[in-house]
Amino acid sequence: MAKLKSEKNSASEEEKRPVSLSKQDKRTINQIDSMAEEVCKVAQRHKEPLVAIPTRSLSNIRFNQSRRILEMGNKRTNRELFNVGQAKSFMQTMLVASGTKQLIEMGKTTSIRGLYYMLKHDIKPTKEPTFHDQGECDPIIEDCEVLLDSLREELHLFADKRGDMVGNLIIEDNGDEIDCSRMGSGGYAIPSIVEPNVIKFKKCTAKFVLHVEKNTVWQRFNEDKFWKKHNCILTHGAGQPTRGVRRLLNRIHHELKLPIFCLLDNDPWGYYIYSVIKQGSINLAYESQRMAIPDACFVGVRSHDFERCGLSESVKISLNDTDRKRAKQIMEYPWFARKKDWQKEIELMLKNGFKLEVEALISRNISYMTEEYVPMLLKEGKFLD
Amino acid sequence: MAKLKSEKNSASEEEKRPVSLSKQDKRTINQIDSMAEEVCKVAQRHKEPLVAIPTRSLSNIRFNQSRRILEMGNKRTNRELFNVGQAKSFMQTMLVASGTKQLIEMGKTTSIRGLYYMLKHDIKPTKEPTFHDQGECDPIIEDCEVLLDSLREELHLFADKRGDMVGNLIIEDNGDEIDCSRMGSGGYAIPSIVEPNVIKFKKCTAKFVLHVEKNTVWQRFNEDKFWKKHNCILTHGAGQPTRGVRRLLNRIHHELKLPIFCLLDNDPWGYYIYSVIKQGSINLAYESQRMAIPDACFVGVRSHDFERCGLSESVKISLNDTDRKRAKQIMEYPWFARKKDWQKEIELMLKNGFKLEVEALISRNISYMTEEYVPMLLKEGKFLD
Repeated sequence: MAKLKSEKNSASEEEKRPVSLSKQDKRTINQIDSMAEEVCKVAQRHKEPLVAIPTRSLSNIRFNQSRRILEMGNKRTNRELFNVGQAKSFMQTMLVASGTKQLIEMGKTTSIRGLYYMLKHDIKPTKEPTFHDQGECDPIIEDCEVLLDSLREELHLFADKRGDMVGNLIIEDNGDEIDCSRMGSGGYAIPSIVEPNVIKFKKCTAKFVLHVEKNTVWQRFNEDKFWKKHNCILTHGAGQPTRGVRRLLNRIHHELKLPIFCLLDNDPWGYYIYSVIKQGSINLAYESQRMAIPDACFVGVRSHDFERCGLSESVKISLNDTDRKRAKQIMEYPWFARKKDWQKEIELMLKNGFKLEVEALISRNISYMTEEYVPMLLKEGKFLD
Repeated sequence: MAKLKSEKNSASEEEKRPVSLSKQDKRTINQIDSMAEEVCKVAQRHKEPLVAIPTRSLSNIRFNQSRRILEMGNKRTNRELFNVGQAKSFMQTMLVASGTKQLIEMGKTTSIRGLYYMLKHDIKPTKEPTFHDQGECDPIIEDCEVLLDSLREELHLFADKRGDMVGNLIIEDNGDEIDCSRMGSGGYAIPSIVEPNVIKFKKCTAKFVLHVEKNTVWQRFNEDKFWKKHNCILTHGAGQPTRGVRRLLNRIHHELKLPIFCLLDNDPWGYYIYSVIKQGSINLAYESQRMAIPDACFVGVRSHDFERCGLSESVKISLNDTDRKRAKQIMEYPWFARKKDWQKEIELMLKNGFKLEVEALISRNISYMTEEYVPMLLKEGKFLD
């Protein structure tokens, strides 16, 4: 059986071609180099090599009331090479940092699974693998993000991509000009890395973004050309939006100065999605300043909509114990706890005893949500903050 | 609190605008009307109204050796109005058929969840709902598909959309021209309905389609501009491809005469994905003739690739009991059972005792799969059929 070996002068030559690094790439490489130099310096002074990693646990996360985003505090934990309990993770940290540096220098990106495969090998002459499984690699990647003050995307790592966009916006993606108002029924698939070196905004006439929870709802709004009639951009995240979608919304909001309106289910999961878009995620608080959109608004579905929109009895979905528990937890999040309107909103859902999906509006008529409901809400302009 | 009512003359006028029906839409409406007329005729003759629904159970499915697709047999089951056990599902069948007719006449589409909400109401004066939950509605939709010999998409129903496309193909999607060779890093998001009235092929210079399993692998191939170097179209289905992706591949294969090459994991799930793309799905056998691609080829990952590509020990993932059981089931599928190469392939995986993901190739180098592995396989041209 023929072995599949490199053809001479094909791929290898390609790889030798010097890659022109963006400003951002240079900064990231600097971060990695400084960290490595620091470790070496300590070793040369015959001290124990270590890195001080910002603590990612809940105890080191706080809600910054003035910036209105989740932030990490200043706590750090030392990770030492000459410590039996930390030696492995110390070495893994160096390995991940070095792997991402390689990626940046090659001008390539990969998934976190790809990086795991790139770095996984047995440490010879032992049979000890660098990582037993991906579950061992992923937290180290997150450690490197905080240690190097670099988003995963800046380390050339991408996540799964989900979520599409249409609307009055022209972008440039890797040199290709894409007119999001000419994307048919399918739409432009939002990539996982949407940093300025990949995605550039060329022309935007839209006045706001409508972000909807599900792709089926997005399809309804796109089919009814809502974005054309109301001069906006229409996005969805197929549930909890990916980092790519959140980062893109963040950039559109800050760079193009467009408000972000969210149309989500009237249930604890919808509230949670809103919370992540607006304030950031508790697990990944360090990325909030690049991802969170504290001025995002919740347009619906609202707890009073069942009555207000005259929906039929049959669209109610009874709350279960998990829903009630989750709703109460969310009410206590600091950024919801101080807002009377949100307290009332969630209390009313609990009092109703049922939740409502966006699709429940279809029971009025198929285009009620696109032609009556959202237009009326936009006209009124009374959103939940 | 203001009630959100229809603004006069806005949405309603829009809805009154006559929708121009495509040839396909007219055919589907004819199918629905004929079915309804048949039911009425029987009733007028004072006989019991019924519909004879093609049986969708495994007992009525066979593998057509000459067409090489899964097909339904001729068995039908009567569903009668005056039968206590069938009255409800009879009425639900009529309701779904009538709902889809409304959709077609309005020129709108919706998700199966949307249709459920459209049709759900209490049957007055009782409090009996038309459907208790979506689980009651979905099989009726499938019944209507076989009863009316119309794909779900022809009934104006869409599924979740997943999967993206780039490559040397220009399409028209709802009147918008989309050049899939100018779609940047994100790609064109494949819609759920890709029938000829929505998607038209304008220009294709590509010579084949490479369909990969995961979007992270797709991103690697897109970033390396594989489709440009090898003049092809690149698609993924984010796992098991959706109906939209399968139907699009089917149309590209039959209308543009391009071969479909699949790059999937070397594991039972990868085999199963291939089986569905090629022969159709057992659950939805009636759609095979519009979705299946009997000439699709499996290019990799192959069971001998661990040795052949010199992969490192650490990329092996041990088979578990479920894998072994599933692999044996798949070996017995009629379309695998008669193929010696496939029997050998699966036997070798079982003998190896491990499975391999496409990403395992990254352990050679990050672009090994795009710059060496697939190009070598294409050159050799020895694919699994």
